[in-house]
Amino acid sequence: MMLDSSKPDKHAARVDQKLIPGQSARFKKQIEFVLEVDKLKHVLRQNVLLDQSRRENSTEHSWHIALMVMLFAEYSQEKNIDLLQVMKMLLVHDLVEIDAGDTYCYDDEGRQDQSEREAAAADRIFGLLPDDQAAELRALWDDFESRQTPESKFANALDRVQPLLHNYFTDGLTWQANNIKSSQVYDRMRPVKNGAPDLWDYVGALIEDAVTKGFLAK
Amino acid sequence: MMLDSSKPDKHAARVDQKLIPGQSARFKKQIEFVLEVDKLKHVLRQNVLLDQSRRENSTEHSWHIALMVMLFAEYSQEKNIDLLQVMKMLLVHDLVEIDAGDTYCYDDEGRQDQSEREAAAADRIFGLLPDDQAAELRALWDDFESRQTPESKFANALDRVQPLLHNYFTDGLTWQANNIKSSQVYDRMRPVKNGAPDLWDYVGALIEDAVTKGFLAK
Repeated sequence: MMLDSSKPDKHAARVDQKLIPGQSARFKKQIEFVLEVDKLKHVLRQNVLLDQSRRENSTEHSWHIALMVMLFAEYSQEKNIDLLQVMKMLLVHDLVEIDAGDTYCYDDEGRQDQSEREAAAADRIFGLLPDDQAAELRALWDDFESRQTPESKFANALDRVQPLLHNYFTDGLTWQANNIKSSQVYDRMRPVKNGAPDLWDYVGALIEDAVTKGFLAK
Repeated sequence: MMLDSSKPDKHAARVDQKLIPGQSARFKKQIEFVLEVDKLKHVLRQNVLLDQSRRENSTEHSWHIALMVMLFAEYSQEKNIDLLQVMKMLLVHDLVEIDAGDTYCYDDEGRQDQSEREAAAADRIFGLLPDDQAAELRALWDDFESRQTPESKFANALDRVQPLLHNYFTDGLTWQANNIKSSQVYDRMRPVKNGAPDLWDYVGALIEDAVTKGFLAK
C-alpha cells in the first residue's frame, strides 16, 4: 500500500451535500466535524509511550484517560459524580490542540498565550458543529478548563496522573530531556490532590522514588 | 531526546508494591492494567489516517468512535439508550487486540480463529484487574461482541461507520490495496442498518458513489 504524506488534507471540503441523507445541513456539519478531528492524531505530546519507541499523540492520551475513568472512579474525591460527563470531557479536552498545538506543561513561555490560542481554536473547531452540539462541546471544554465541578476536578486529576506514570515508568525520559525538577512536577500535579487524594499519595511516592533513583532532579 | 525501540517492555513488572499507598493489592493491579493497555497504541489497523500519512492504531480508532457517540446519539435506532455504557464499550472493545492483533475485517482466513484468539486475550488482559473490575470489563466486551442490547447495536454501528468514512475519504485506499468489492462492504456494514438506520442511508450513498467514481469494485 502506498502512503503519500504530501497529499493535501481536504476531506472536509469534499463532503458532498448531495450524498447526505435528506441533504441535511445538520448531518453534513456532523460529518465534517468527525473528519476534522482526525487531525488530533497528528498532534504529538512530549511524553513517550511506555516502550519508549515514539512520542504519544493527543488522541492516544485522551483514550487512555477516558478508560482510566472506569478504573479509578472509586478514588474520586467526591463520590457519585457523573462519569459520563467526565468521560465526555476527557474525550474532548484536547481538541483545541488541532489548531493550538500541544503546549508542554513546563514551557512557561508557550503557556503565556496558551489560553488565547486555545480559545480561538475552540471557537473554530466546536463552531463546525450544529449550534446545540457546538454549545455542548464548548461547555465540556470550559468545564474541564475551569476545574470547578467535581467532574472537572476528577477529570483533571486523571489528565495529570497518566503522563506522570509514563514519565516514571520510562525512568524520567522527558523530565531529564527538559531538566525538570521535582518541585515543578509537584506543582503540575496539584490538581490530583483535590480531585483524587488516594492517587495523590501514589504521585508523591513516585516523585520521591524518582528523585532517590536519580532520574528526577531534586 | 533519544528513543530506543529495542528496550524491553517490562514496566508492569516494575510496579513496586512498597510505593503503592497502603500497599493495596487492588490498587497495584489497577496500575498494572493501566500500564499494560498502553500496548494497544502499537496495534495498527488496515485503515489509514485521512491525510494518508500512516496507518491508524486501535486506540486512535477507539477514541474517535467514543467521541462520535456524543455527536450521533440522535441517530441510534433505539432512543434513550445508556450512552455511558456505549462509551465504555467502545473504549474497551479493542483491548483484546493487545494479544490477538487486529484481524482485517475482510481476512476470511484470519477470522476463522479470531473468536478463540480474542477470548484467550480477554481472559488474560481483563484478568489483570481486581475481580469486580475484570468482570465489568469482560461484560462490556461480551456485550459489544454479542450485539444484542440497544447499546451494543449502536456501538457496533459506530465501529463500522468510522472506518467506512476513512476508506471513502481516502479514495478507497485500503479497499483498492485489498481488492475489496462493494458487496463485501455492504455485508460488513450490516450492523449499521440495525443500530443507526439514518447512518445506514449515508453508508449506502458513499458505497454507491465510490463504485461510480471507480475506487471500489462493483
